[in-house]
Order: sequence, then structure tokens, then C-alpha cells
Amino acid sequence: MILIGERINAGFKDIARAIREQDPAPVKSWAEKQAQRGADYLDVNIGAASRKPEDMAWLVKTVQETVLTKISVDSTNLEIVEAGLEAMDGRGGMINSTTADPEKLERLIPLAVKYDVSLLGVAMDERGSPPDVERRVENGAMIFATAVEGGLEPDQIILDPILMPLKFMQEQAKNVLEAIGQYTILSDPSPHISVGLSNIASKAAERGLILRTFLVMAIGQGLDAAICNVMDGELMAAIVTAELILNREIYSDSYVRAFQARRGL
Amino acid sequence: MILIGERINAGFKDIARAIREQDPAPVKSWAEKQAQRGADYLDVNIGAASRKPEDMAWLVKTVQETVLTKISVDSTNLEIVEAGLEAMDGRGGMINSTTADPEKLERLIPLAVKYDVSLLGVAMDERGSPPDVERRVENGAMIFATAVEGGLEPDQIILDPILMPLKFMQEQAKNVLEAIGQYTILSDPSPHISVGLSNIASKAAERGLILRTFLVMAIGQGLDAAICNVMDGELMAAIVTAELILNREIYSDSYVRAFQARRGL
Repeated sequence: MILIGERINAGFKDIARAIREQDPAPVKSWAEKQAQRGADYLDVNIGAASRKPEDMAWLVKTVQETVLTKISVDSTNLEIVEAGLEAMDGRGGMINSTTADPEKLERLIPLAVKYDVSLLGVAMDERGSPPDVERRVENGAMIFATAVEGGLEPDQIILDPILMPLKFMQEQAKNVLEAIGQYTILSDPSPHISVGLSNIASKAAERGLILRTFLVMAIGQGLDAAICNVMDGELMAAIVTAELILNREIYSDSYVRAFQARRGL
Repeated sequence: MILIGERINAGFKDIARAIREQDPAPVKSWAEKQAQRGADYLDVNIGAASRKPEDMAWLVKTVQETVLTKISVDSTNLEIVEAGLEAMDGRGGMINSTTADPEKLERLIPLAVKYDVSLLGVAMDERGSPPDVERRVENGAMIFATAVEGGLEPDQIILDPILMPLKFMQEQAKNVLEAIGQYTILSDPSPHISVGLSNIASKAAERGLILRTFLVMAIGQGLDAAICNVMDGELMAAIVTAELILNREIYSDSYVRAFQARRGL
């Protein structure tokens, strides 16, 4: 399972303030905490706090000074993405994200190749978010095929079928599960498959229960990555249990602790 | 989701004692408690406490005097099964269980037809428990085809791919998940699919976590029934959350309580 820590995002007030005041302390603190909890990537996102590419570069550099974890450069703005990639020290990382927009793909795929990073593609097109399984599969397949043609390995491509809030678009969760199953048969080896997990529990009362339940169902369908709260111990325990059931972890009575230990806790 | 309450089983000491002493109190108490928690069936099993068919008849009658819930007559012994069915008052129920043994099928299918009850078939054959997906599917398909030929409706057939303890046969959990997916495409409408859930957590330290995680993954693959501990509130909350994600329950912030209320709590 590829864990992408969601916390260095200007959607959180402490990070928004850190960016505005160029205060590295909260960024370093979340980088350390998430790395210690076993994040494989740290997502960094300047959100609405800034439109300046140099702020993304600052975030990337601040994280790099603190931990050795790979970085997910998260922006829909091409200049901001490029500034984040330029600031990288060669440790590897990913672009989060492209859509199935041909213009975006034409610019982002060469960047991913040039910087030797992975590319996360969300199954969105010019019509917006997909309303069904078919559009998710079409858009995912289009991103995958274009990225492979452009020189990326299947292992460098991560597809995201776009999770919606269960509270407001309940029927989409099932569609996402089905799309995950379809993505696994796009190629052999299959692309990685990720979701932005927190979306599904947006405004819901039973947040933790919904997050854990959806995530293990999705892992059962073939999901192997997630942007999520790696600090959520119950969520991490659910993930390792799902991996155990799929025979990817070795059983011991203390398998939850063994997983944490291997993840560096 | 079809919930089959596991508790009236002589594997539990209070039930073994109740059977030996013909004391209806523990049987009635567990019948009431499980019915109140929303069990669709109450499994009754005299286990090793008795080899007398009349003890099964006594268990069935004792439960019937207490609640209106359907009964799952659980024995590998044909005379004991028949005694349970004869004691039934026509409310419906199931035979738990047959295997893919042609002789068993030849005797149990006509009994299920005669008493108009469902038949649960475990994917076991004369070679014992299945070691892989293929044997599970072969045995399940054989039971299904024979039962349909014998006059049962697909809706009266419940297939069980046989869950093994994760601690001792870790690789089988994944095989069970795959077999569940295969069972769903045996026919349209598909047979029901059940597991004896507690098996997977046998002797494991993280029992609750393993039970909940496996069950929601299995529901994602098409499982729609389980013999389980219906008194386990966390397990029931996980089930309703999985049903919500699959768009079979309607979202409300209080969906866990709404589910309990509809189940009669």
C-alpha cells in the first residue's frame, strides 16, 4: 500500500498561515510526524493560500530539509507544479495531478518524464467529474494510454477514479469501487490506483467508520494507494488487516505493531 | 444482508448445559437477544452435547416458543436435521448444511423442498476442505446445479466457500474472497453467499478487527449473508456502512441508529 500523507495542505489553517508567513515550523512538524507514521509520499499543496509558484518551491524545499520521504506536488496549476518539480532534489516523487484533458497531458507527461516522477491522473474530463463507471474507466484508460505513449512506465502511473462525498452523492461510491476493479485490468502490470480518501466522509457524522470501511472495500477491489490521514491509527490498522487478508503481510498476533515498526514507528 | 445468529450452539457452554439439562432459559434468552439485534435467522446446533435427534427438535421448539425468527437447523447428521425440520411450525428456515457429497445432496435437497426451507451448501467434498479458488467454485457450482435440478429456487440456495483461520491458513482468506466473486456469476439471480465468519479470527489476537475487515471486503465481493455474532455492535456498524457504500441503505447522519431501529432495536 502506497500511503500519501495529506496534511501539508493549505486547506488546513496552520499550513495556510505557515505559507503566508514563510514559517517552516508547522511544515517541518507535519513532515516529521507523517514520515514517522510511514507515509511513502508527502503531499504538498499551497491551495488558496497562495498563487505563487515560489511558495510551492519553498514548501518542497522545507519538506526536503526535514525528511527523506518522496514528495507529491499537488496543484492544478502547471506553473506551480513545475516550480515544485524544479525544487526537488532528485529523491523521486509524483505530480498530483493531471486530468484526461489532452492539453494538460501534453504538458505534464513530458514533465514527469524529465523529472523522473510518477503521475497521478484523476478521471476527470472537460465535462467535470464522472457520473458513472464508464466515464471513469474511459478517462482513466485515456490517461494511462497517453502516459505510456509519452514514455512513462505503468508503475509510474497512478489513476484516481474520484471519490465523492457519501452524504451528497451516495451512488458514486459504488461506481468508484467498480472503476477500481476495471483499472486493475487495463494492463499487466496494472497502473497504481489511488483515491483522495477524506472526500468520501465529507460532512458525514460517522467519519472514521466510513473512511475505514470504504478503504478496505476498495483495497479488496485492487486499490493500492491512498491520499489519507496517516496519523489515524484505526485507519492504518484497517489497512494492514486488509493486506493480511490478501496475504501480503505475514500473520503474527502482533501484526498491527509489526506493521508500525516496519513503517518506522 | 442476511444475518444468521450463531449463538444457540452447543459449542458454547451455557447452551451445552441447557441441552443436557433440558433447561430452556439460556436458549430463550439468546433467541430473544439475537432476534432483538436483528438476526434474520437463528442458527441452532446441538454440537457434541448430544447425538439425539429429539434434542434438536427440543431446541427448535424452544426457540419457536420465544420469537418469530426463522431457524437455521445446523447439523452434519441427517437424522438430526430431519428432526429439526419436523419440529418446525412452517415459519420458514434453512438447512445448515450440505456439502458437495452427492449422497448428502440426494437426501437433503428433497427435504428442503418438502419443508420449503433454504439450503446452505458448504463448498466441501469427499477430499475435505478446498485448498484453492477452483475447488470452491467447482463444489459450489455442483451444489447449486444439483439443488436447482432438485426443485429449489436460486433464492433458496446459499453457498458457503468455507472460511479458514487466518492465523493458520492465511492464504485461504484471499481464495474465499475470489470464490465469492465467482459465485455471484453462477446464475442470474445469483445464489445467496454466506460465511461462518468467526472461523477467520480463530485464536487470533485482533479478533474484532479481523472479523470486521474481512466481512466488509467480502460484502464488496458479493457476500450477502453471514453466520456471525449479531451482538457485536462494531461488526453490525461495519455491515451497515458497507451496505451504505454499496447504495443499499439510504444515507443519513444517524444511519447506524436508523439501521438498528429498522432491525427492531
